[in-house]
Amino acid sequence: MFEVNENYLKLPGSYLFSNIAKKVSDFTQAHPEKEIIRLGIGDVTQPLAPAIIEALHKAVDEMANADTFQGYAPDLGYEFLRNTIAQNDYKARGCEISADEIFVSDGAKSDSGNIQELFSQDAKIAVCDPVYPVYVDSNVMAGRTGTYDPKTETWSRVIYMPTTMENHFVPEFPKETPQMIYLCCPNNPTGTTLTKAQLQEWVDYANRVGAVIIYDAAYEAYISEEDVPHSIYECEGARTCAIEIKSFSKNAGFTGVRLGYTVVPKDLKSKNASLHDMWARRHGTKFNGAPYIQQRAGEAVYSQAGKAQLKEQIAYYMKNAAVIKQGLKDAGYTVFGGVNAPYIWLKTPNNMTSWEFFDDLLERANVVGTPGSGFGPSGEGYFRLTAFGTYENSLAALERIKSM
Amino acid sequence: MFEVNENYLKLPGSYLFSNIAKKVSDFTQAHPEKEIIRLGIGDVTQPLAPAIIEALHKAVDEMANADTFQGYAPDLGYEFLRNTIAQNDYKARGCEISADEIFVSDGAKSDSGNIQELFSQDAKIAVCDPVYPVYVDSNVMAGRTGTYDPKTETWSRVIYMPTTMENHFVPEFPKETPQMIYLCCPNNPTGTTLTKAQLQEWVDYANRVGAVIIYDAAYEAYISEEDVPHSIYECEGARTCAIEIKSFSKNAGFTGVRLGYTVVPKDLKSKNASLHDMWARRHGTKFNGAPYIQQRAGEAVYSQAGKAQLKEQIAYYMKNAAVIKQGLKDAGYTVFGGVNAPYIWLKTPNNMTSWEFFDDLLERANVVGTPGSGFGPSGEGYFRLTAFGTYENSLAALERIKSM
Repeated sequence: MFEVNENYLKLPGSYLFSNIAKKVSDFTQAHPEKEIIRLGIGDVTQPLAPAIIEALHKAVDEMANADTFQGYAPDLGYEFLRNTIAQNDYKARGCEISADEIFVSDGAKSDSGNIQELFSQDAKIAVCDPVYPVYVDSNVMAGRTGTYDPKTETWSRVIYMPTTMENHFVPEFPKETPQMIYLCCPNNPTGTTLTKAQLQEWVDYANRVGAVIIYDAAYEAYISEEDVPHSIYECEGARTCAIEIKSFSKNAGFTGVRLGYTVVPKDLKSKNASLHDMWARRHGTKFNGAPYIQQRAGEAVYSQAGKAQLKEQIAYYMKNAAVIKQGLKDAGYTVFGGVNAPYIWLKTPNNMTSWEFFDDLLERANVVGTPGSGFGPSGEGYFRLTAFGTYENSLAALERIKSM
Repeated sequence: MFEVNENYLKLPGSYLFSNIAKKVSDFTQAHPEKEIIRLGIGDVTQPLAPAIIEALHKAVDEMANADTFQGYAPDLGYEFLRNTIAQNDYKARGCEISADEIFVSDGAKSDSGNIQELFSQDAKIAVCDPVYPVYVDSNVMAGRTGTYDPKTETWSRVIYMPTTMENHFVPEFPKETPQMIYLCCPNNPTGTTLTKAQLQEWVDYANRVGAVIIYDAAYEAYISEEDVPHSIYECEGARTCAIEIKSFSKNAGFTGVRLGYTVVPKDLKSKNASLHDMWARRHGTKFNGAPYIQQRAGEAVYSQAGKAQLKEQIAYYMKNAAVIKQGLKDAGYTVFGGVNAPYIWLKTPNNMTSWEFFDDLLERANVVGTPGSGFGPSGEGYFRLTAFGTYENSLAALERIKSM
């Protein structure tokens, strides 16, 4: 009889957002008259910007004509998009990243889940705690994380780096040396960031100990403060120790469009093995390119009109963030984030657990958020609200929370 | 210092079609005046059908409006598409597959590369030889295939099942028992098929030995003969031993659109582990759903207009197949396929190797095909031509080949 990958069976329960969806669905069935406001999952609500829509229609029209029809895309992405990204996201910021170091994909979630494949089976990972669950879960599936302790909700072979209010959300270098370091910056869920000087220390550390930083910059577009870097390649030496993962989901509302990219510099090597070549081989073998029409939409993100429209969209969400943050403060909550990221991270009141606060908020305010403990053990006692709703809903949710 | 996944380094050279692209590019640079006809890679050339274009435009317009905007898709696919597939591809053919056993993805290549993750590290795979290279390569990357022998171009832990003219392209049950059996049917590259009775024997065999058949039916729409099954679930007992992978690339020209699906029946279990639940977990963790606009395009494939238009498109390619097959026969070649698949598989003349014939065809006829040996050792001495070009090019290519 065939046997399965036992590592999958070690994963406790199901994915965080599936659990939330189930709880909300149960609540809605029990209380069909209540109007729920969802500030839980980090999904955008604003429609695609006109420049994107125009590019999509144009690309669809090209697919209707034999002379302009596009079949298989290049596995690694169309030149027009890779060049545009290299120019706008890197060269314009003084980062030395060439177009052929950029790998276009169907999104940052796929890339952050798949990137671990390039590393040896016994590589040890370090993650900020709390953080986006995909990093740990994808390594669990690969058998890299040891055994699970349900009491502490930790894995024996994962190095957890607590980022809490006690250390101002800046992770410390771990005592044990990791081979892979996941940094999500601005961080999901805490909405906090590292300054350029702090990130430079991490780059130096990674180069010193021979580790690779997997830098998830999905929320980069929300950075408003001067001393927060937009790319890890702004730091000296990052080309020999860092992979950067980027998304179009949050800067351009592509959560349902699906487009992202990953940068693997050619200088990133272990002995003679080039992670760049390995990732190219993975794309060539297990991926068939991002769709043409999506890549044209991605290009439009960088057009003059696209940039102007998306700046407005981000300002809209960040206005929500400010409303939520101020409202929570006024109600006496201790809050973080919301300045360089669309996430507001709050300390639960009265020592409630994250899930207790989730239930309380759902039942009394009919507002859905995300329990901090779902992002790692040090997220216990915290709670995430997102600014991705409408302005009206953000206001309404805060009114309800204030009157709880 | 971090270490890489050594299995990647075992892969010999680069992916087949990259090699071909390089050879063609070198030839074009040396002979810029020659007009190349490409019957190599299996990429479509006809533009998307009007019903598909209409659905894409409509979906794009929905993304432009806050009331109809779609964010994250359900990980496993929208109900509207899963229901349509269940109805048209299964219920209408008498197959018992429910909508929640259908997992929508960004294409069959991703799914056929990723599906091996669900199996244990020491599972042994059996593949038809020759066959689509992704099955073996993705298992090499996972470390499941043992050591590579460059002389025989085989892996020590892969069971090769030769399908050649000697056994009429019907694989025999292997002597050693595999846990995973990849069947591509209609086969890429040979263009040959199994009858329903022959496939039933494989289903019975898999159930008997406790193996899983991974059934790649990407070319199903090209089947013209009555006794060839369109789905493995037409066979009795397939629900307990078979996964089916389907593509929209070849039936609807979606090579650059990217959409596919995989069926994992709930009855497919090893002890208490459900492959259905494991695949759902993989989608939830490492994939973020296929794009909304693509899923609407997929739905249009099954509309009345879509069906009629795509029937014509397939007839167009199959007319090319007939032209190529008859032309080769007239020129004295021994040929197979081209009846239930858009691939024509020919025996190279004068005992030339596959790559010798590739070079000869490129140099003397300026026609690009695919060397059979690129699909496995038993493909040596064969060559693949595809019917996916235009009718004019198919005719012209055959004229050139005849006058070689």
